[in-house]
Order: sequence, then C-alpha cells, then structure tokens
Amino acid sequence: MSFQNPVFIPGPTNIPEVLRKACDMPTIDHRSPLFGSILHPARDGVRQVLKSKNAEVYIFPSTGTGGWETAITNTLSPGDGVLVARNGMFSHRWIDMCQRHDLDVQIVEVPWGSGIPAERYGEILKADSAHRIKAVLATHNETATGVKSDIAAIRAAMDQANHPALLMVDGVSSIGSMDFQFDGWGVDVAVTGSQKGFMLTAGLAIVGFSPKAHAMTASAKLHRTFFDIRDMDKGYANSAFPYTPPVGLMNGLKTACDMLLAEGLDNVFARHTRIATGVRAAADAWGMPLCAASSDVQSDTVSAICTPDGFDATKIVTHAADRYGVAFGVGLGDVSGKVFRIGHLGSLTDVMTLSGLATAEMVMADLGLPIQLGSGVAAAQEHYRATPAQAQKDAA
Amino acid sequence: MSFQNPVFIPGPTNIPEVLRKACDMPTIDHRSPLFGSILHPARDGVRQVLKSKNAEVYIFPSTGTGGWETAITNTLSPGDGVLVARNGMFSHRWIDMCQRHDLDVQIVEVPWGSGIPAERYGEILKADSAHRIKAVLATHNETATGVKSDIAAIRAAMDQANHPALLMVDGVSSIGSMDFQFDGWGVDVAVTGSQKGFMLTAGLAIVGFSPKAHAMTASAKLHRTFFDIRDMDKGYANSAFPYTPPVGLMNGLKTACDMLLAEGLDNVFARHTRIATGVRAAADAWGMPLCAASSDVQSDTVSAICTPDGFDATKIVTHAADRYGVAFGVGLGDVSGKVFRIGHLGSLTDVMTLSGLATAEMVMADLGLPIQLGSGVAAAQEHYRATPAQAQKDAA
Amino acid sequence: MSFQNPVFIPGPTNIPEVLRKACDMPTIDHRSPLFGSILHPARDGVRQVLKSKNAEVYIFPSTGTGGWETAITNTLSPGDGVLVARNGMFSHRWIDMCQRHDLDVQIVEVPWGSGIPAERYGEILKADSAHRIKAVLATHNETATGVKSDIAAIRAAMDQANHPALLMVDGVSSIGSMDFQFDGWGVDVAVTGSQKGFMLTAGLAIVGFSPKAHAMTASAKLHRTFFDIRDMDKGYANSAFPYTPPVGLMNGLKTACDMLLAEGLDNVFARHTRIATGVRAAADAWGMPLCAASSDVQSDTVSAICTPDGFDATKIVTHAADRYGVAFGVGLGDVSGKVFRIGHLGSLTDVMTLSGLATAEMVMADLGLPIQLGSGVAAAQEHYRATPAQAQKDAA
Amino acid sequence: MSFQNPVFIPGPTNIPEVLRKACDMPTIDHRSPLFGSILHPARDGVRQVLKSKNAEVYIFPSTGTGGWETAITNTLSPGDGVLVARNGMFSHRWIDMCQRHDLDVQIVEVPWGSGIPAERYGEILKADSAHRIKAVLATHNETATGVKSDIAAIRAAMDQANHPALLMVDGVSSIGSMDFQFDGWGVDVAVTGSQKGFMLTAGLAIVGFSPKAHAMTASAKLHRTFFDIRDMDKGYANSAFPYTPPVGLMNGLKTACDMLLAEGLDNVFARHTRIATGVRAAADAWGMPLCAASSDVQSDTVSAICTPDGFDATKIVTHAADRYGVAFGVGLGDVSGKVFRIGHLGSLTDVMTLSGLATAEMVMADLGLPIQLGSGVAAAQEHYRATPAQAQKDAA
Repeated sequence: MSFQNPVFIPGPTNIPEVLRKACDMPTIDHRSPLFGSILHPARDGVRQVLKSKNAEVYIFPSTGTGGWETAITNTLSPGDGVLVARNGMFSHRWIDMCQRHDLDVQIVEVPWGSGIPAERYGEILKADSAHRIKAVLATHNETATGVKSDIAAIRAAMDQANHPALLMVDGVSSIGSMDFQFDGWGVDVAVTGSQKGFMLTAGLAIVGFSPKAHAMTASAKLHRTFFDIRDMDKGYANSAFPYTPPVGLMNGLKTACDMLLAEGLDNVFARHTRIATGVRAAADAWGMPLCAASSDVQSDTVSAICTPDGFDATKIVTHAADRYGVAFGVGLGDVSGKVFRIGHLGSLTDVMTLSGLATAEMVMADLGLPIQLGSGVAAAQEHYRATPAQAQKDAA
Repeated sequence: MSFQNPVFIPGPTNIPEVLRKACDMPTIDHRSPLFGSILHPARDGVRQVLKSKNAEVYIFPSTGTGGWETAITNTLSPGDGVLVARNGMFSHRWIDMCQRHDLDVQIVEVPWGSGIPAERYGEILKADSAHRIKAVLATHNETATGVKSDIAAIRAAMDQANHPALLMVDGVSSIGSMDFQFDGWGVDVAVTGSQKGFMLTAGLAIVGFSPKAHAMTASAKLHRTFFDIRDMDKGYANSAFPYTPPVGLMNGLKTACDMLLAEGLDNVFARHTRIATGVRAAADAWGMPLCAASSDVQSDTVSAICTPDGFDATKIVTHAADRYGVAFGVGLGDVSGKVFRIGHLGSLTDVMTLSGLATAEMVMADLGLPIQLGSGVAAAQEHYRATPAQAQKDAA
Repeated sequence: MSFQNPVFIPGPTNIPEVLRKACDMPTIDHRSPLFGSILHPARDGVRQVLKSKNAEVYIFPSTGTGGWETAITNTLSPGDGVLVARNGMFSHRWIDMCQRHDLDVQIVEVPWGSGIPAERYGEILKADSAHRIKAVLATHNETATGVKSDIAAIRAAMDQANHPALLMVDGVSSIGSMDFQFDGWGVDVAVTGSQKGFMLTAGLAIVGFSPKAHAMTASAKLHRTFFDIRDMDKGYANSAFPYTPPVGLMNGLKTACDMLLAEGLDNVFARHTRIATGVRAAADAWGMPLCAASSDVQSDTVSAICTPDGFDATKIVTHAADRYGVAFGVGLGDVSGKVFRIGHLGSLTDVMTLSGLATAEMVMADLGLPIQLGSGVAAAQEHYRATPAQAQKDAA
Repeated sequence: MSFQNPVFIPGPTNIPEVLRKACDMPTIDHRSPLFGSILHPARDGVRQVLKSKNAEVYIFPSTGTGGWETAITNTLSPGDGVLVARNGMFSHRWIDMCQRHDLDVQIVEVPWGSGIPAERYGEILKADSAHRIKAVLATHNETATGVKSDIAAIRAAMDQANHPALLMVDGVSSIGSMDFQFDGWGVDVAVTGSQKGFMLTAGLAIVGFSPKAHAMTASAKLHRTFFDIRDMDKGYANSAFPYTPPVGLMNGLKTACDMLLAEGLDNVFARHTRIATGVRAAADAWGMPLCAASSDVQSDTVSAICTPDGFDATKIVTHAADRYGVAFGVGLGDVSGKVFRIGHLGSLTDVMTLSGLATAEMVMADLGLPIQLGSGVAAAQEHYRATPAQAQKDAA
C-alpha cells in the first residue's frame, strides 16, 4: 500500500496540486500560438522572480548543471580566467565543469560551512590588473552545507576593484525561496532549476543573462549548440524553441511564477524564514550545531545538522527512509557522514515541517543519540505559534 | 498559494495517489464488457473485505445514508418493529430514518461514550415472543464518539433469545479499517461507504446482504426504486447497472480492495490499531480523557477527546483550520462543544499522525489550555518507535 | 496498449480536461467553509443553466433515476394521480418507478419515435375536474429514441385546462445541451444528472424545484430520507450536506457551470445543433431514417438511426467496439435491434464527430449494409464547413 | 470551453492515459533505492526497444538535439572528419551542430525527398584511406520530408570500404515506431527522444552507445559536462544521476517501454505501417504526391504531402488550427510552403486518423483545392477495414 509522507530533501520539493495539474497537459502543437501564451509569461514571470527589469531569461530542458554550462559556454572562451570559491559540493562541481572546459580557474578554498569571502575576491580582482579574469562565480546558497553567501558584498568588491568580469551566480537553491536581486546586486548570469523554489519536478534549467553577459555570446568560443542562447533568441522571437520544448513543465513554470508573484515575493521569503527558524530552533533544542558557521550564513532553504563525532550521519537518512518512509538529505563530499540535511523549501507548511522534525527525533533516538523526544518539535512549535502564517486552505 | 496538510477528519480520509488515479478515468461505455471487468472484481473485493463467502454486495451511487435506506427498504414493511440503540449521532440518524419510514422503532438509550448493551438487546428480544421485531440495528463504530460496539455479542444475544430478526450493522467507519466479520458474526446487512476504510471520495453506498436478508426483498413493502436491490440483481447479471454507474469511482473501489487485500486485512487492522494507540497515548499525556468510556470500546478509526468543562471544544477545530490549515472533527449532538475528534483511518502514516498531534498541541496552547508542547507528540513517538511499521515508500 | 477514441454514447460524454482536473481533488473538510465555496456556486450555476431565477436546486450523490425519485417522493403521496406519456425507455422507467411507489399512473401510450402529444394531455387534464392528477410528467428528450418533446406546449395545455398539477420534466439528456426554460415553460420540477450536458462522470442527481413544488414537501407522504429536500435545505443553510458530499464531483459541477455560462448557453445550444445536423446529414446520405418521426422532434444530443428490416442493429454496436474500439449506443426496449444510437452531446467537436461517422460507415460496410464509404462523412463535412465553429484550442 | 482533438504533428504524439499518469508522480527522493527501480528498468527497456544486447543507454533531461550533442562530444575531437548526408531539416541541423563544434564535415547533398545514398557513402569512405573520417552520420527517418533511409545498406557500405568510422544514427522519429536494429545494423550511437515512439512529452534525450563508441569517450576532446557519459556511468553505478533526474518522466519512459514490449515490437511496427498506409491511400485519392520520392523511402511515422505549385501549403496548417482546432505540421526549410505534414506515430488509432484525414479534406476544400470530400477518408477506410487491428479498449 502506498502512503504519502512529505519529503524533506533540499529539492525537488513537495509539489503543490495546482502545479502537478499545470504540468499534466495533453499534447498541444508547440509551433502554434498557444505555446507562446505559455512561453512568454513563463519568461516574464521568472524575470520578476529574479527582481530584474532587463534580464533575458532562458529556459532549457535540462537541470541546474545545464544552466551552469549555459552560463560559461555562452560567455567564455578556452583559457579565460575564472575566479570562484569552493565551499561545498555544488561550488566544487561548477569548478570541475570550468576545468573540463579548459578555463583557467582560480579557486579560493573556503571551509565548508563558511560563506564566500568577498574581501578575498576583492584582493584577487585588484591584483588582476590585466583583467585576465573574465568571470567571477558565486554559489548563493550552498545546498550541501546550508550556507548562504552575500552576493551584494561580492558585487561591491568587484566594483571597488573596478573589475569588468561578469558576476555569475548559482541561485539554484535560493531563487524563488530567498531574496535574490538580479538587478540590485548587479548579477550578470543567474542560474536555477525548476525543482526548488519553483516547486516543480526537475527538468528545466533556468538562466538569466544581463545585457552585458548577453553581448559576450557573440565572441565566446566555447562550443555549444543545445545550450546556445543565440538559437534560443531566434526561437523565442517566433514564440518557439529551437527544438521541442517540454510544454507541460513550462506551463508549470508559468503557473509557479503566478503563484509566487500572487503571494508576493517578500511573503514567500518570509514564509521560508519562518519555517527555517523553526527547524533551527529544533536543532538547537537537540543540542546539535548547524554546519553553517554563523547565524548570518544560515540558509532558509536547507539546514545541514552536525551529528556527534564518531556517529555516521548517513545512517539517519537511511533509517528514516527504511523505518518511517521519510526522506532527508545525506552529507556530501567533505561533510559526508558528518551532517544530515533537512530541506525546507518550496511547498511546505509548518505542520508538515513538524512531522519531519518528529521523525528526525524518532530516528536519532532509535540510533542511540541522546535526543529527548518532542524537544525539537516543542521548540519549533513555539516559534510557529509566535509567528502566525496565513493558513493555506486552497486545495486545488 | 496552496499547500497540502493531511486531514484528520473521521472520513473522507486522505486519498492514496493510486486511488486518485484509479478514479480519474476517461469515459468508457458502461454497457460494454469493460465495465464488467470493474464491477465484478469490485463486488468480489468488498465481499472479501467483509470476510464473507456468500454476501451479495450492492454498490450504489450514494452514501452511507443511502446504504441505511437500502438496508431497511429492501427488507421491511411499514409498521415492522426495529430494535436499535442510540449512543451517538449516527445511530440517532438511522433511528430518525426508520421513524420517517413508519417503522415501529424501539430505542435503547445509551450514554454517548458507551457501546451497545448486548444484554439489554437480549432481554428485549426474549420478551418479543411474537417476533414483532424484524430487525436489530447496530452501529459498529460510532463516528461521533469514537466508540465501537461488540457485534459478536449482539449476535450471541439474538441467538440466545432464539430470535429471527435480521442483524443490520452500520460499519461505515469500521469496515476496511477495523475487524469486521460478516459471516463470523452472523451479520445480515452491513452498510458502509467509499470514503472511510476504502480511502476514496464519498459517492458510493456499499451494502452487503446475507441470503436471509436478500430473501426478504420480495415481501418488503417499503417503496424503493433507486435503492432496489432487485433492479441491481438484474443489472449485475448483465455486468451492468440499472442506471448509469459512476465508473471511475467503482474502479477506485476495485483498486482499493486490491490494495487492502494485498496488504492483508489483519495487517490493515493492526496498522490502524498502531496509529490509534499513538493518538490515545498523546491524549493521555495531555491529561485529556476520551469520550469512549472504557478502553474496550475505544475506536481505532477516530478518537473523540474531551476538553475541560467550560471550554468550547469547537474552537479547537475552527482555530486549527484558520491558523494552521488542519482539519479535525467537531463534536456532534449531545457531545457538541465537549469533544473534538481526530480521525485516524485510511491512508495515514505515523509521520502524518504526528503532525496532527503537534498541531492539536499548538491549537490548544493558543487557546489557553494547559498543554505542554511536545508532550503528546513524545508519547506517540514512543509508541511508534516501539512498534515498527513497514515503511511505505511506493509513491504511485 | 491503450489508445483513446472518443465515445459516442448518449452520456456519459467525453470529459474535458479541466473537468477531470476539477473533480480530482485532494480531500478537504466538507464541514469547513471551503465546501461552501463549492456548493453555493454549483447550485447557482445550475439555476442559471436551468434559466431560472427562483428554482431551488438540489444536488444528490446519485443519478438521474435518483432525481426522478426525489421529484415524486418530495411532492406526492400514495394514491396520487400522475399523468405521463410513454414514448421510450426512459419515460417507461419513470412510469415504473411511479407505479412501484403506489401512485395512480395514467399513461398516454405514444409510438416510440414520436413526441409527447400536448393536446392529449390537455384533454385528459380538462376531464380531470376533480384534480385527482397531482403531477404531469414529461421526458423532454427521450434518450432511447432521440426524440424531443415540446414542454412549452404541455405547459400551455395545462394552463388552458386550468389544471393545478405540477409539471415535472426529465431533462437528463437535454439540460445543458438543448434549450431548457425552467421559468419560461413553467416547469415545477426539473431532473438531470452530471454525466450529460455537464460533461462529468455519473454520480450526481440534479433537481430543480419551483416554489410551488417545494411547498408540497411538507405534505407529501411518500417515504424519503436520503432524497428528502428538507434535510438538504437544512444542510445548505449551513453550507453543508446532511451527509458526506462528493466534493470533487461537486467542484466539477461548479466548474462545468462556469464553462457553460462563459461560453453562453445559446452558443452551447447552437454548438449542439451544429454537431447534430452533421450527424443527421450523414444518416440521410446513408439513406437511413432516424427513429424520430419528424424533423421537429429530432434531438440535438442523440440520434437513433434505423437499420433495414431484418438487420440486427445491435451488431453495429458490438462490432464497433470489438473491431474499432468505438462505443455507440444500442437500441433499448421497443426499438431494441432496430436502431443504433450516436450520442453527440457534451464535450465533442466536429472533428471528433467525423471519426464516429467514419467508424459507423466501416462497421456497416463490414456487416454487409450497402453503405458507400465516405458518403456520410462527406455530408457532415459539408455542413461543418458551411457553419464554422469557434476552434477550440484551450487544452487544459 | 476546451475540447480535445487529437494532434497530427510528427511528435510529440498524443499521450496515452497510462503514460500521463506514470509521469504525474509525487516527489520521491531521487537518491533513494526507489529511483533505481525506475532507472534500471527504463534503461533496460530502451535497450530492448533498440534491439540491442550490449548498448549502453543514457538518458538525459534534454531533447533529441541534446542527444546529437551527446553523440558527438563523447566520441570526437575538434577537427575530426564526419561524413553526413543532408536530405532534410533535421539532418541539416545535425550538420550545423557538427560545424559549430569545429568538426570537419563532409556533406553529401541529397534532394529533399530522397534517402541517404549508401553507395555514395561507400565511395567516399573508400577514398578516405587515411581514415580521417571518424564518424558517419545518418538520419534514419527525416521528419521534415517523411523519408526513411536504409541504415543496413549504410553499414554494408562501411563494411565494404573496411572503414573504422563510427555509425551514428538519428532515430528520433523512428525508434519505437519503425524497425530499428541497433545490433543488427551495427549502429554505434543511436539518438532519440521521449516524445515520439515513446509517446511522452519532450524532455528526455535517449542515446545508445556501442562498446566501440563508448571506448572513445576517454580520448574525445570536445568539451562536455552535462552530456558527459562518464559522469552518467558513475551515477548509474549508484542507481543515481550526476544531477537531479526528472523522475516522473523517467517513470513514464519505463512504463512506455513496458507497453511497447508487451505489445511486441513487431506488432508496434505493423500498427504504424497500417495507420501510415491508410494516410498514403488518402493522399493518393486526393491526387497529391508525397514528398518521399519513392515508395521504398516512405516513412511510417510522418507523411509530407505536396500541394500544387503556387499554393502555400502552410495555409493548410494555419487554417486547420484556426478553424477546426487540429494541428498538422508545416513544411520546413527547402520544402517550406510546398508540403504539409501529417504525423501518424505513437498513440494513434485508425479512428483518430480518419478524423485527421477528414479535417484535412475540409481544410483543403475551404482553401479552394479541388478535393472531393470523403474521398481520402474512404480510401483509408478501405485499408483499415481490410486490415483489422486489435481494438484498443483498455482506457486507463
């Protein structure tokens, strides 16, 4: 028999009814005007979610990884310099991609759990008087560690260094859930996917380009066809794609944007902060520190919780799945076995969150950790009681 | 924006994915053989869920109320005697229906919270030497009070009195969730609906007739057409209905039976007992008594929890809905304002249940009741940890 | 492998995407205000579809047959006189129901294929100076024969006879597809279901009562509980049902009304006339007469087509299903084996209709009837070309 | 109001109910074993559909275009020689991709409407004694012209020339609908997508690699990360993806393979031939030639039909959409305005096809072409009558 607990992985999120139905479309002709009535609002909606007026938004049948590749192949040439910090598994993977594309990658190693050091970026950029560095990469929210970085500070460091490099930001696990200001922060390329803040299944890479970044596609020498934004530009001008688009998923994206904008982005962000604060209160009650080194870098979409030395944190995830049918996230890379992760983004209520916390308590107790049952739940309850959310009753 | 908390009403239950999909069918010709491949397995499946070999199962586009009407109009005539206990709102309503059909209803008044007194039934039946009483009615599980009654004991009392009346049982909120033995208990008519143990939407009355009960339809004088089992018999013989059947919902019923029987009925019942025991442990931790007067009558599908004198229990339900988007059940009739109800039947996991208990705690604390947050959750967690369920991972 | 041809039965119709999705709802609390936001618009919508200002609309988890029972049991008492014409299987069944409820039924026998003779009703009513007849019954559209009757003429005959009987109309296969004027024709009780003009699955009886009919429920002596409109009145006043409502299906009904009213009822009717005219042109091209005796009684929702003497028309339906996976309707009762029926109501386009006609041609040719392939299709094509419909591109 | 005609574009196809439901999944943890129970059967199923024992199957969140890019970037290095014929828009696009990736592309220009000249390939390969050509590309079924090519003959020509180049085949609009023999024809890389023979929405690139092709990924110098099969290999070994997989769509792919294999591949191909033959009979009856130059190259998945000189074929597609809500395909590239295309692949019955043909007739007559209504329909009906299909009645 199949029952249905919410998932607590840091994406894909639980999918709202309306989005599942928006995606589940009968076949339409993707070369008919009907497709334009999905494509254009979807792109406009994403632009608004990015808080941008002028970003060109591209949507690919792909994932955030494809979005990274879109970002670099449309703007850079082999040998170009790239500055990037490594503070988690996802920044690590973007670095690996740059290296495999023969970019000249300058890596700032950062302890996993810390944010990107904007001042260090500034020093390096100042030293790069030849402007060999063409792009500065930043992971806004490290999904592996639950750490957010200060993109505005990075932009300030770039400006102070008077450096012309592009600012490329991985916002996969922040955009649509946490404040993201494409224009306000001077972002040149923003990358995300469908399965986080937009609450859909995986399957779309979503990328915003500033006019400055867009201009570089003409001279960028890295090979590309599937991810070439020039082909997309031609397609979009005809309300079409250069190949067959995933129509239903794009209809879902359009609808997701409608939902987020109807709720109000600031309300969406506040909702995530509220849920996240409850989770952090629970971890505190359990006496377990977050991987995030300080409160200013704690993510509102995912919490990586450190388990005691000598305990294999991965067992929590396995046991939760096997015994209670609940999905948490394992630690990745440097923090593998040291943390487990609770995803708390997208379509999630306080009530659903409490079931995740209660499950974590049972799991940890089962595995012999000295957890007082109900203690984390109580801490979160206190926070949720004190900060009323608008109850969500619209079922479909 | 719409999010989706589980419901904690005593039916309709949360609907499993597979059942929603089974119901959501494109149109087929209900006069084609394809319909027979839904109808016959659905009836066979219900028969097995009833633990019967010979019951004739009837399925109407209706509800449990229509099932009650099916039971009496196909077997009785105006003026016939009926013996029935009133110990909650649903037994009250069946009584009212009998009176409106000009039956001669002998009512055994029972305190709400108590079960049906089999011995009192026995006395009355013994006294009815003229066999004026044609049917003995019993509500197996009073949804209004969370009280189950001992149907086997009633049958024993009838047998001891050597009384030929039919035994008609309302199993709306027990069948498919709690042990029910149509043949074993000598039930003549069993009534249920689609939206409880079968985990579907409301819309079907499901009624089983023993051969003895079935034989009475020929002489029963109460008017009936829509609910006439003779028309159904003719229809079923042709793999059809006497009118247009709700094909998708019946396909859902067929699939629900497949699910229940694949899990094993005793496993299904044990699962309900486990979930219910956790809820009762929480109520106990809160220091709040159940409406059910003693542990032997506590229902495994719904718990009616008494609030302190002077407190309006209905406010819990209203506040939970308005503030947290969670649905509990109000008290009905004699216990209106005195209890609130937590439904725990059908498609529900331990994890989901904990979110309901956590919500109830927040609500009661918000309303000033002296509840220690996390206390009921912890009591339930203990029980769920100690009694591992098979994790339910099959999503669709 | 499963493929999906449209159905051509006279209900249930093909279901539009939006209605399937409207019905497929997660569980909500049917006692919460959310249910009122479905119930009231659904009732209001039906009232508008009935073209009534004052009708009280009742919605039961049932079918049109339950609607008939609602009509008679809420207004009549055993022994009351009823005047009704028999001109098809569905009028026959309503007559049977009246007889089984001990009403005194005066039957006007009419050849199957003809409409109700209003003048004959008038004569009988004039002769009934004692007003023994309490209700005049009329089947607006005989689904078995594809014959519509003139309800306005019946009302005129009643008025001319100055007879106070109620006018009860079975509009099951007309309401929502063909013009129906509850107020304009002085209808007292109108009966329909969810699976025809409303394009949903079967599962709802939908009944409108005039104030005059409504007033009779107080004195009506026929037994009723499930179908008692007094219980419904009390429920509706609290935005609730007297029992558990089929929430998803009612949400579908609300949405169906929205669709019909947004299209405009007269446009809906014109659309049905256009599709039906194409089907009739095809039958004419085949040289096969309709069961409907004259053009003024031809139904716009179903065509019963007469096959040559000595040919078993039922074989067409069987062969179409077995060989081509297409569902037509068989002849019923007096016209069994003499006609086959093409349903053309609800969610159906000209394009879909052509596939039904093409299938009928193949089937008839396969069975040896002298049909020129493409001839009926061509006749329908001519009509559809000459009468452009608004193309329907909205997929979901 | 929304109604639903089938689409007649050459993909995406109409989607079977079961596949829509298989795709519409609630969120699961894509790092849990549950995902492996989707991934592995999906890959195995594709391998069987390819008629291969040893092909490594890769599935990307992408489209056929991404599949092309997967094929070349994992096997080739800048400057490598590629031999390819251009006989339609899709071969043209693959050529363009190769050129943009700095491959040395030798193009065999072929009239649009003809197949690939295997003997010309043979001559060129024989002349390439230095084996500068690393890959031979072939479009099995040109979707733009409705032309299939003889892949076995190309393999024979390669073998005769004793040339070691890889044979890469675009089977986007053939695989799963027309015979395709990965092993039998010595294919090294086969490319397809989810939205054609697999009857799903667009969103997956599906690529098979022979051991020989697979071995080349180690030395291939073209940049790649998203499409790198080495990352996929590592992921698959852990029942995972290197990034977030589109779980629902992959579940759809698994189910689609189950459907195709249960029906039997040869039955699937015969079904497509039957449907296609009816379409060709209709075109013949209209007196309109196919773009395909001879009967041996006529595709069984799409027919490009030539309109008379001076007539703009695109108007047929526009008018069909605007007036009848039916989607056909326009001519592309060299045959733009000269042909319109009827897609007839995937989930399509004879009955649905007839509605497309009937629509095409109305459209052409509306636009002044000298078409006799019903003539093409009749020709197709004759073929469908003479070649009975197994009726498809399983609705869900």
